[in-house]
Amino acid sequence: MSLNSGPIKLGIVGVGKIVRDQHLPALAKDRDYLLTAAASRHGKVDGIANFPDIETMLDAVPELEAVSLCMPPQFRYDAARTALAAKKHVFLEKPPGATVSEVEDLKALAAANGVSLFASWHSRYAPAVEAARAFLGSTQIRSAAINWKEDVRRWHPNQDWIWAPGGFGVFDPGINALSIATHILPAMFITSAILDFPENRAAPIAAHIAFRTSNGLPVAMELDWRQTGPQSWDILAETDKGAMVLSGGGAKLAVDGRVVHDEPEAEYPMLYKRFAEIVRAGVSDVDLAPLQHVADAFMLGKRNVVEAFFD
Amino acid sequence: MSLNSGPIKLGIVGVGKIVRDQHLPALAKDRDYLLTAAASRHGKVDGIANFPDIETMLDAVPELEAVSLCMPPQFRYDAARTALAAKKHVFLEKPPGATVSEVEDLKALAAANGVSLFASWHSRYAPAVEAARAFLGSTQIRSAAINWKEDVRRWHPNQDWIWAPGGFGVFDPGINALSIATHILPAMFITSAILDFPENRAAPIAAHIAFRTSNGLPVAMELDWRQTGPQSWDILAETDKGAMVLSGGGAKLAVDGRVVHDEPEAEYPMLYKRFAEIVRAGVSDVDLAPLQHVADAFMLGKRNVVEAFFD
Repeated sequence: MSLNSGPIKLGIVGVGKIVRDQHLPALAKDRDYLLTAAASRHGKVDGIANFPDIETMLDAVPELEAVSLCMPPQFRYDAARTALAAKKHVFLEKPPGATVSEVEDLKALAAANGVSLFASWHSRYAPAVEAARAFLGSTQIRSAAINWKEDVRRWHPNQDWIWAPGGFGVFDPGINALSIATHILPAMFITSAILDFPENRAAPIAAHIAFRTSNGLPVAMELDWRQTGPQSWDILAETDKGAMVLSGGGAKLAVDGRVVHDEPEAEYPMLYKRFAEIVRAGVSDVDLAPLQHVADAFMLGKRNVVEAFFD
Repeated sequence: MSLNSGPIKLGIVGVGKIVRDQHLPALAKDRDYLLTAAASRHGKVDGIANFPDIETMLDAVPELEAVSLCMPPQFRYDAARTALAAKKHVFLEKPPGATVSEVEDLKALAAANGVSLFASWHSRYAPAVEAARAFLGSTQIRSAAINWKEDVRRWHPNQDWIWAPGGFGVFDPGINALSIATHILPAMFITSAILDFPENRAAPIAAHIAFRTSNGLPVAMELDWRQTGPQSWDILAETDKGAMVLSGGGAKLAVDGRVVHDEPEAEYPMLYKRFAEIVRAGVSDVDLAPLQHVADAFMLGKRNVVEAFFD
C-alpha cells in the first residue's frame, strides 16, 4: 500500500439510493479518492468498471485499496469479511451490521489484516453537532429529549429490506439520532421501551424509549415513521444555560430560541475526509454505542401491534 | 478495605429461589466469606440481620465489603450502582443486567470506585466445561449445535418477571448455554433467528438460531421451554477427533459415546471462589458476550406468535 503516492483507489459496493444521493457527489469533489470500480447486483456507476459482485471486482481490480459497503445491513458482513481478508480498508454505511457481535468480529479481522475499518455514522458529521457537544459540555444538563419523526413513504419508498427482520424499521433513521445523542450527551442506557409493530411487518414503525444517563438524567426518545407534513429530527436539552434545540438532524443549533449555529450540510464529504484520515493514520474508527442501544431496545422493549402499513 | 485480615463480609440482596437453592449452601461452606446481612422485599435469611432494601442494609452495616445481587435483572442496575458508589464489590447474578449498555456503565463505575465487579455465569463453572474447551482446542471443529430444552413449569413456576419485557423468556436458560458456548467455541455471531412468542406473553418460549463462527463454521441453537419428560442441556460438536457431546448443562463430556469427564456439580462454590479471587486481585470479570448474543437475537430475530402459555 503506498497511500502517500496519490488518491485512495476506491471501489463502491451496493449501488442504490444512498450511493447516488450521497456517496457519488461526495467522492466527485474529493481529491483524496479515485473512484475506480463498483459492484452491484442491479445498479451501475457511469464511467468506471462495474461488476456483479465484490469478489469479481476484487479479482479484476487488484489495485483497489479501499471499499465502501452500502448494501442493506443483512448482507454487509460477508462483503466486509471478503474485503478485509483481501487487505482492503473498509467503509461501512450505517448501520455497520445486522448484529453487534458481527461488527466486533470485523474489528478483530481488520486489526489482524492491518487495515482500517470505519463504522460511519453520517449524522454525527452534521454541521451543528460539534457545537451542540461543546455547548452541553459547558453546562449542566437537566433532561434531554430526542424526537425523530418522518414519513417513511417519502424517505424509504418500497424499501422492503428495511421492514425485514434485521432491517431495523424506524431505527434506521432512529440510529442517526442515537449516533448524535451518544456523541453529545453523557453515557446513557435504556430503562424501558415500547416498540410499535404494524401487524403486517417484522420491524417497528414507531418506538417510545426512556433512557437514563449514568448520572441519573432522563432522556426520552420518540421515533415515528408516520409523520406527514413537517418532519422532525430534533434533540432538545434543558440546561443551566437555557433550552438547547439541535434541529434539522443536527444542522441547526439554537439556545433559548436564538440560533447560534446554522451551516450548510456536508455529512458525506466529512465522512470521506474522516475515512482518509484513519486510513492514513493506520487506525480503525468503530463506535458501536448507537447499534448497541438499538439491540438493547429490541431486547428490553415491549412489543405493541399497531395498524398494518402499506407502501 | 483489609481483605487479607479475614473473610469477606458479604450482604445478599433479593432473597428468592436461586439464593436458597444455590447461594446460601455455597456460602455456608466457604471460609472466604462471612454472610453478614440480607436485604429483600419479601424473603429473609435466618441467623443474620435482614433489611427491606439495599440502602437500609448499607447504612446499617457499614462493615460490609461486598454484595451479591440476585433480584430480577430489570432491578439490578440501581442496586449495583448504589453498592458500587458505596465502594462495595459486586457479584451480579446472571444475566448481569437488562441491557448491555447498563452493564458497560457499571464496569466503568466499578473501575472509578476501585472495586471489583463480577458478571457471574454459573454454567461456565459446570464440571466438564474446561475439559470440553481443552478438547475443542485440540482439534478441528466442523459444526456445532446447542440444544437447551426444559420444562418452564418445573424450573420457573409462576415467575411472572421472566415473561415480562426484559425478562428474557427462554433466553433465561438459553444464556446459560451461551455462557458455555462462548467459552468453548470460537467467536461467533448470529446470522438468523426465529423467536416464538406465546400470544399472551411478552417474552419468547422458544428460539431457533443460526450462528456462524468467525472462521465460517455453522452453529445451530434450539431453545425450548415446552420440553416435558427428559430435559436437554447439550452442546454437540462434530470434530476431526470425533463427535463431542457436552451434556447435563456442562456436567458430562463424551467423545464418540465414551464418557471422558463426569464429576459432581459445584457451580456456585466455584463462582464464589472466583469472586474472592478477583476481589483479592483488585480486578473485575465482566464478559458480556452471552448477553450480547441475546440482544442480537432480539434485534435480528423474526417474531413468530405461538399458542398462549399458562402456568
